[in-house]
Amino acid sequence: MHQLLGRLIVPAFRNRYLDAQHDAAVLDVGGVRIAFTTDSYVVRPAFFPGGDIGTLAVNGTVNDLAMSGARPVWLSAAFILEEGFPIESLRAVLGSMQAAARTAGVEIVTGDTKVVDHGKGDGIFINTAGIGLVEHSLEIGPLSVRAGDAVLLSGDIGRHGIAIMAAREGLGFETEILSDTAPLDGPVAALLAAGVDVHCLRDLTRGGLASAVIEIAEAANVAIGLDERSIPVDTVVQGACEVLGLDPMYVANEGRFVAFVGERDGERALAALRAHPGAAGACRIGTVQGARPRQVTLRTAIGASRIVEMFSGEQLPRIC
Amino acid sequence: MHQLLGRLIVPAFRNRYLDAQHDAAVLDVGGVRIAFTTDSYVVRPAFFPGGDIGTLAVNGTVNDLAMSGARPVWLSAAFILEEGFPIESLRAVLGSMQAAARTAGVEIVTGDTKVVDHGKGDGIFINTAGIGLVEHSLEIGPLSVRAGDAVLLSGDIGRHGIAIMAAREGLGFETEILSDTAPLDGPVAALLAAGVDVHCLRDLTRGGLASAVIEIAEAANVAIGLDERSIPVDTVVQGACEVLGLDPMYVANEGRFVAFVGERDGERALAALRAHPGAAGACRIGTVQGARPRQVTLRTAIGASRIVEMFSGEQLPRIC
Repeated sequence: MHQLLGRLIVPAFRNRYLDAQHDAAVLDVGGVRIAFTTDSYVVRPAFFPGGDIGTLAVNGTVNDLAMSGARPVWLSAAFILEEGFPIESLRAVLGSMQAAARTAGVEIVTGDTKVVDHGKGDGIFINTAGIGLVEHSLEIGPLSVRAGDAVLLSGDIGRHGIAIMAAREGLGFETEILSDTAPLDGPVAALLAAGVDVHCLRDLTRGGLASAVIEIAEAANVAIGLDERSIPVDTVVQGACEVLGLDPMYVANEGRFVAFVGERDGERALAALRAHPGAAGACRIGTVQGARPRQVTLRTAIGASRIVEMFSGEQLPRIC
Repeated sequence: MHQLLGRLIVPAFRNRYLDAQHDAAVLDVGGVRIAFTTDSYVVRPAFFPGGDIGTLAVNGTVNDLAMSGARPVWLSAAFILEEGFPIESLRAVLGSMQAAARTAGVEIVTGDTKVVDHGKGDGIFINTAGIGLVEHSLEIGPLSVRAGDAVLLSGDIGRHGIAIMAAREGLGFETEILSDTAPLDGPVAALLAAGVDVHCLRDLTRGGLASAVIEIAEAANVAIGLDERSIPVDTVVQGACEVLGLDPMYVANEGRFVAFVGERDGERALAALRAHPGAAGACRIGTVQGARPRQVTLRTAIGASRIVEMFSGEQLPRIC
């Protein structure tokens, strides 16, 4: 996927926005900066503990806007329905979208619906695109990352991926794991309101924490050091990962992000995040160590040090 | 489809933008008006005479922006690929998108790719969302339609639908019918540059000319009279429609639109349209007859008069 994107699609449309390798393009409209992003949602199953495809479709796009430092304002919603998808399920998904939009303070202002024949889809696919307003003068993105930056994580990792796996495989754990799907515009607004020198934000979706941090190291051309002991993983999630043979560092999240902030702002940023319910479990997990080599090093619980590699296989398909 | 949208999805997200029942939402960004729209493309087959799903995905969204009177500027592109979709086909689609974007003068600035398992998609689905700039002070939309307005059509109808049907059913006609897929921002810009008092624009996609005009009559609460003899249909398209049992009034187009303009501006608007290669065959096809009854009447070739009904069955699924 990452390879397909990198090798084929990005070069086909090459321009300065795609070159920024960011979740959203930041565009100038008569002197006002807007962010613009899109994602299609094909999660299987469409309903899972803690949410459904509608919750994801709103929160995911809200989060891509928030990660560019924009305040999410308007969303589009486009549905591809497979013939026979139950009207009651569609109604439930629409209700989830409405509720999620209300929570994030966005309006769904335009849309589309297509129906494909039975066997040519999978119940429901949703695309949302979003527009947000950039209301500050920071340049938030991988190219603003600097040596010395504090690397912050907004909460514990792995919940969404494990919730999906459990729903898919019919697994039961001692405690049900709910997806962490949530809008991240609030925690980001808290950082900005506190005047934190935010350099880069990235939500930890497909590929999890590891992939997000590696992508940033590569795009920013820096070395990043993480400390495994500081990365929170719920014990039930940890146990499920062990049973399933997964590394929580690579498991998808839908309500967690990393923030790279100026080295003097680490504590202030943590305080701002922790004061918001969507990032109450925020913690510092590492430091940008310098320009080159562009790689991520993890200091493990037993004190060893290893390079974090981009996951090479397909770990969890259709997680969002 | 129209019913599903009307009954379920629009009320779920009810707001002033969706209530305008327009192809795009017009939004205010710091005093600048932008248009925002989305469409998913699921056309079958993905390659057809005159274009492919990539051409459609760019032109269709460009046209939705143009129909709101906006100059299309930025597009997103999101792909849902079925496992096994040939890389060479993807490359061809990307090439078509690039070419269409260049022609329409838009940039594809953000994107997404998802892969679904074999049997859970149909080769390739594409969603494009678009942003355009509204650079005039007109309110273009059904609510601006007035009694006396001239109804103009930008060219002959039915080519796209027949091209798709021919490709799908392996039909051969004496002359190959090519899809009319084309960007409509140029003809719209020509109307605006000529200072025409443009009231409403609508491209004639799914459901064709008849559905577009009926939708406008209903949204604007007016009666509209059309003259069948003035509606151009290519003789090969007409013949194909007869063989296939289709009425060209209901067949999809991807490069044609109707313009409702102030009654004194009809001739000037026609001149402006005809001077543009994308609307060289423009002609006047009718008049808005007054407030109520909100229906469309067609004066037929033999001089009779009949009410144009919304097509009730599913005529041509997956036409775009």
